[in-house]
Amino acid sequence: MNQSAARANRSEEKCEGCPEEQVPILKDPQGRWMDGLLLDHTEGQSFLTEAFKVILEEVLTKGTDVNEKVCEWRDPAELQLLLDLELREDGENQQQLMQRVRDVAAYSVKTSHPRFFNQLFAGVDYHALAGRFLTEALNTSQYTYEVAPVFVLMEDVVLSQLRLLVGWGEGDGLFCPGGSASNMYAMNVARYRAFPQVKLKGMWSIPQLAVFTSQESHYSVGKAASLLGIGLESVFLVKVNQRGQMVPEDLVEKIELAKSQGAVPLLVSATSGTTVQGAFDPLDLIADVCENNGLWMHVDAAWGGSVLFSKKHRQLMKGIERADSVTWNPHKMLLTGLQCSAFLLKDTTNLLKHCHCANASYLFQQDKFYDVSLDTGDKSIQCGRKVDCLKLWLMWKAVGTRGLEGRVDQAFQNASYLVDKMKKREGFQLLNEPEFVNVCFWFIPPSLRGKQNIKDYQERLSKVAPVIKERMVREGSMMVGYQPQSRRVNFFRMVVLSPEITLQDMDFFLNEIERLGVDL
Amino acid sequence: MNQSAARANRSEEKCEGCPEEQVPILKDPQGRWMDGLLLDHTEGQSFLTEAFKVILEEVLTKGTDVNEKVCEWRDPAELQLLLDLELREDGENQQQLMQRVRDVAAYSVKTSHPRFFNQLFAGVDYHALAGRFLTEALNTSQYTYEVAPVFVLMEDVVLSQLRLLVGWGEGDGLFCPGGSASNMYAMNVARYRAFPQVKLKGMWSIPQLAVFTSQESHYSVGKAASLLGIGLESVFLVKVNQRGQMVPEDLVEKIELAKSQGAVPLLVSATSGTTVQGAFDPLDLIADVCENNGLWMHVDAAWGGSVLFSKKHRQLMKGIERADSVTWNPHKMLLTGLQCSAFLLKDTTNLLKHCHCANASYLFQQDKFYDVSLDTGDKSIQCGRKVDCLKLWLMWKAVGTRGLEGRVDQAFQNASYLVDKMKKREGFQLLNEPEFVNVCFWFIPPSLRGKQNIKDYQERLSKVAPVIKERMVREGSMMVGYQPQSRRVNFFRMVVLSPEITLQDMDFFLNEIERLGVDL
Repeated sequence: MNQSAARANRSEEKCEGCPEEQVPILKDPQGRWMDGLLLDHTEGQSFLTEAFKVILEEVLTKGTDVNEKVCEWRDPAELQLLLDLELREDGENQQQLMQRVRDVAAYSVKTSHPRFFNQLFAGVDYHALAGRFLTEALNTSQYTYEVAPVFVLMEDVVLSQLRLLVGWGEGDGLFCPGGSASNMYAMNVARYRAFPQVKLKGMWSIPQLAVFTSQESHYSVGKAASLLGIGLESVFLVKVNQRGQMVPEDLVEKIELAKSQGAVPLLVSATSGTTVQGAFDPLDLIADVCENNGLWMHVDAAWGGSVLFSKKHRQLMKGIERADSVTWNPHKMLLTGLQCSAFLLKDTTNLLKHCHCANASYLFQQDKFYDVSLDTGDKSIQCGRKVDCLKLWLMWKAVGTRGLEGRVDQAFQNASYLVDKMKKREGFQLLNEPEFVNVCFWFIPPSLRGKQNIKDYQERLSKVAPVIKERMVREGSMMVGYQPQSRRVNFFRMVVLSPEITLQDMDFFLNEIERLGVDL
Repeated sequence: MNQSAARANRSEEKCEGCPEEQVPILKDPQGRWMDGLLLDHTEGQSFLTEAFKVILEEVLTKGTDVNEKVCEWRDPAELQLLLDLELREDGENQQQLMQRVRDVAAYSVKTSHPRFFNQLFAGVDYHALAGRFLTEALNTSQYTYEVAPVFVLMEDVVLSQLRLLVGWGEGDGLFCPGGSASNMYAMNVARYRAFPQVKLKGMWSIPQLAVFTSQESHYSVGKAASLLGIGLESVFLVKVNQRGQMVPEDLVEKIELAKSQGAVPLLVSATSGTTVQGAFDPLDLIADVCENNGLWMHVDAAWGGSVLFSKKHRQLMKGIERADSVTWNPHKMLLTGLQCSAFLLKDTTNLLKHCHCANASYLFQQDKFYDVSLDTGDKSIQCGRKVDCLKLWLMWKAVGTRGLEGRVDQAFQNASYLVDKMKKREGFQLLNEPEFVNVCFWFIPPSLRGKQNIKDYQERLSKVAPVIKERMVREGSMMVGYQPQSRRVNFFRMVVLSPEITLQDMDFFLNEIERLGVDL
């Protein structure tokens, strides 16, 4: 007798003091609901198995096949009709539902496709994905050893390994729902260390603060300042050089400026791997400034942190060990899948817990029968917290530190290949020699070549990337992002991070940009 | 030729201007790394398929089998040894890795087991789980229509359906990483509406604020106040009655108290379904107070919100339509799986976006070829944001609104069955007649029965629950939480939320508590 039948039988057994009508077993017209509202395990597992096959076929095989489209673009109104998203009084049958699964897969962007270059994530790692499926099936929260024994220990090991790469033999940390959240943690912990009374008494009890980050840093620094009640105007944007790196001399000036306005400098958020240009701020020089001024040094290495795996390239982050805290998103370059963002701290005084603890007695009982210091919930501003360590851990076990190093090195090699090709090819103009794997460039269509001096050149150039982008997306041939930045008009940001990308994919990329833009 | 072989071949093709050594194909001693660092699709998919089988067997079949253990408890030091968590220079072979998958499954708590009553989540819904696997495989972020066309439209539909249940024909919202984050959003948006200058100028530009919530509300209200720079001391804890419901008269008094201290009352965070007792604050009365005082009314219905599906029980939240914002976690009672937390807003002025926007030009270009108001990223304090709508949408499509209503009603019936049994049974003492499905009670062991008047009764009673808990966890027979609360010593909080729970499971529960505690 299978388990589901067994449970159905159990429900039919006579039960002391329980009249039939008290807990009715509901059934829909097709008799689908057995043993309580569609939780029949046999049927449910059969649906899940079918869905798994669709995932394998549509997302992981077709979705990564270079001969298939990256996306099956539909305009919003059309897609709305196609998907029939409305939720109704009655449920649908299994066949209809499986078609839903297929439709969702069909019209979603294939971010693991070898020609998806649109974001700072791409590609698929099957061990990480297995870890993600297992995480979902186990459905627990990271907050106590009691309900997440494996993951509490595992998170600790993974974070300590990441800290070792940063250069810290001890410290603290946790996985956060994204790099913006990790950066926000940094600001909050820095504020608490400087002014612990803020936790109880709020900002009115402390002086006006100032935080510092570069003009090309991630917008989450500003968002965090707003959320924390520090305010966007207290974020001093430090100048960058031509390559997008923070200028330490200007940092010193901005600190003086803040002081002259009566603010107390709190934190510098340096960046390792800026979002657009992939620039690495000079950490050692910034650390000097932080030390001289008693500032918390945070490094937003959400994107660039993975270079720490590479013996060859980790010098880009020279000085990182002098930071107080680091944001590092393995879901970007390492392919763990969204979300996997580590917030790492050098602190060994339990600052994270002191800053965030609420001592909720229903969750973190002090009379438990195990070491309650393992209950991490009080370190977090969240209560329930998704398990984000398993996917990284399993992938790391699979390829080893050496394998992850290889991936990082390969991404650099790919970028270098692409840059070389661009230099030799008419119509491709690099913004800069890239430091990292962000290859930023303008495509100059034939009609604009050699005409840099005409009056509306910049304006015309600014319209090239959006048109090429629209064409590629409508065709589904590839996806790459573009943006303006300070005085630069729209340019492409090509990101070659996935080890799945071949040299042919990059050749295709160049040809395709040209094909789509040759008439502009 | 399969796809993986095809891609391997592509790598071997001669490539213009690309010397062999430029992008080496790495291989480990077993020759496992093909086509770049273990991303061979055939091998990867084979591993994933094997892992899927383990998930089916260990987590979803054994893990939900009433004859198996809820958890295979190991003390931390022992578990650390068993798991071999360390991450090394070299990777492991597929067989070893599959054993890792089995070990993680074996030693994790089975939160879908019918005798897991430990948290406010439990059970498994296979359609939701299929949605979660598909979400993981598609690996995208919710921030733009461009990379998440299906999910941008879907989130909008799901949120609007939830808002309809709240009683709003229009409004705004987004899915957040947990209820604590949703509550924090509410506080930030309320602050911004009252004092928009705070975004730029910080808290120094505005008067001292005060927020109000009940003594038995969730600790995230306090955490949010600390994080936002409002400070824990500005959170006024309003008295509750015996059943744990906020006393509106005391709310009025606390508002006056805050004013008398020079603070500006900002927001009331009422609770629908408190964490421990499952109490529902009287929303209509609280709405009156909020209206009279011009306060933002937030309702933390993370736990209780799902009663809105039930025609029979939704009166518990009478007045909810008068709220300004609502937190509602379908990952609790509705079984969507972690995480699925909706933050819902009545506002139609785009307050959420105004409050959080950073206008990042690299992500939210204004010259895109589709309606950029679909890009939700500027509504969020995050940048990348996990897709949390698909699991709920697919489950809702599967069972219909009626099916979800049935689940809620069944949970109430189960709780009522349990309460009746307890009343008839010696040794079980209810705290209160429950309003919801939290059944809070003391187990009075035979040695303490009828001895309420002896001097150390409370102290001895406080030690009962921890011992029973330890015994049940070490045996793995079931899991249920306990806690002290205000002057009440440790009591159990039994939560019967999963439709998978049968009457036999509840009978077992009572017998098991007695068996484990009879000698105390």
